[in-house]
This record gives sequence, structure tokens and C-alpha cells, in this order.
Amino acid sequence: MTDTPSPLTYAPPALAAREDLLAAVRFDAAGLVACIAQQHDTGEVLMMAWMNREAVAETLATGRVCYYSRSRKGLWRKGETSGQLQHLVELRLDCDGDTLLALVDQLGVACHTGRRNCFYRAIRDDALTTIADPLMDPAALYGDAHKGHSHG
Amino acid sequence: MTDTPSPLTYAPPALAAREDLLAAVRFDAAGLVACIAQQHDTGEVLMMAWMNREAVAETLATGRVCYYSRSRKGLWRKGETSGQLQHLVELRLDCDGDTLLALVDQLGVACHTGRRNCFYRAIRDDALTTIADPLMDPAALYGDAHKGHSHG
Repeated sequence: MTDTPSPLTYAPPALAAREDLLAAVRFDAAGLVACIAQQHDTGEVLMMAWMNREAVAETLATGRVCYYSRSRKGLWRKGETSGQLQHLVELRLDCDGDTLLALVDQLGVACHTGRRNCFYRAIRDDALTTIADPLMDPAALYGDAHKGHSHG
Repeated sequence: MTDTPSPLTYAPPALAAREDLLAAVRFDAAGLVACIAQQHDTGEVLMMAWMNREAVAETLATGRVCYYSRSRKGLWRKGETSGQLQHLVELRLDCDGDTLLALVDQLGVACHTGRRNCFYRAIRDDALTTIADPLMDPAALYGDAHKGHSHG
């Protein structure tokens, strides 16, 4: 599945509308805004990551979700390395402009651990528990470390 | 509805389990962790806010979601003023420990604008659009400004 992304059907909105949304975002002191990714049809919350202005603009223009990696200090085109692309369905902004909600169609898995989503730890039966198993081998997502692949 | 919260059926997990979860959270330099609130049965993403260690501990102990207000620099017991309580169903932690997902039962509305959720702006028909209407009058949530009620 990771080698055959679904056909892109995303039609980018008019540039003026994209600029209006960008103007409504309240980026923090580091120039970032939080973005929650949610599977558009099931409602599953997949992950939370950060975007800078360029990442929001690219996401809206291309329909492929692009974050900003705080650790790598650069754009993080989700799935570029792993093949686990996020196709954008709709990008929503919250009341005070400091959080985005990206409704997406997630190919494969969202989490770098190979799990469908990142929120797999919770208290069950009075113990902190892993509540979801990996669906894919992380090594298959990113290759062996010596190949020098970064996360993504 | 706001005057008659549903009966609390929350049973706090053992203290040791709560402490294990707290120890797994990677609070940021300001001592905060992002928390996404999701309606547990419909999957609706309601809001995103911040918690400090005390807020996480109180949420787990009481089953009523408590955030940290960065503007008021204090605990923000969701619904304390507005009556729009969030009853905790489960608190989940993500892979790298810097984001929580709170599955909740939201009484009434989550957004201070009177909307069910905060993510009501999106691009539709090439224009930045308000995609949801308020279900309640914000003045009814917080009273008139001269009464001195704060948000919550």
C-alpha cells in the first residue's frame, strides 16, 4: 500500500482563500502552530505535530500534509521517507487561531512505531498499559539505521 | 443541562498508575503538555488546550478535565464557570510523551463561542468560512462582562 498512494483528487483552494486562512493563524513565538491529524471518515485521532507558515501553505497547496520538525528544524513532508502519506481532506482552524485540525486520509500508519495512531498508552486495570500493537515493523517504514533514513 | 451534570461514575485509577503516567509525560520547558479533548463516543475533536503536572494529576484523580490556562496562569477547571464540564473517560499519552488525548463526555459545548467544538473555520467554496453555528449564547455561558466571570 505504501508504494501505491491513492490518486490525488485534492483541488487546492484559491490562493486568496489560502492566504486568508494563513492570516487567521496565530503562530507562536517560535513561528509554529499545533496541528491535530484526524482520519476523516472514522474520526480516529492519529497524531499531533507542528507546522510553520511554509508547512501550512504547502499543505493547502499540495493536499499532502507537511509539518515542521522541531528536532530536524525543517519541513517534514509526512510519508516522504516512510510512504505513509496523509492526504488532506480539510484543514480547520480553532476559535483562537492557535490550533489546526487536519482531516486526512492516512495511508498505512501515522505513528513512527508502526501503530495506526500515536496515542497507545493509557491506564487500564490500574496500570499504565500499551493499548495498541504495531501494524507494521518500524524497520520496514524507515529502513535500517545504517541506510541513514530519517523519520517521516 | 449545565445545571445538572451527569452523575459521576469515574473511578480513579490506583495512585501508582497515575504516577506512572505522570512520569511518562514529557512536559515542555514551560512545564506544559498539549491535551486534545475528543468526545468519546462520536469521535468529534472538541478542543486543544494545555495541562501542567497538577492539572494532569487532578484530572486523573477527579475524572473532571482540568487544564492550565496560559493567559490566567492557573488551573482551569473546564466548566467551573460555564457549567460545560468534561467528564473523563480515558487519558491517553502519545509515543513521545508530549501530547495527551483525553476521551471525554462533554456536557453542552466545548467552545467559549458557544459552539460544540472549537474548529469551526475552514475553506469552503474558495473562501475562509464559518462552518458551524453557536448552539448556546456565550453570554449565557459566562454571564455579562460586568459580573466579572472569567472564561472556563
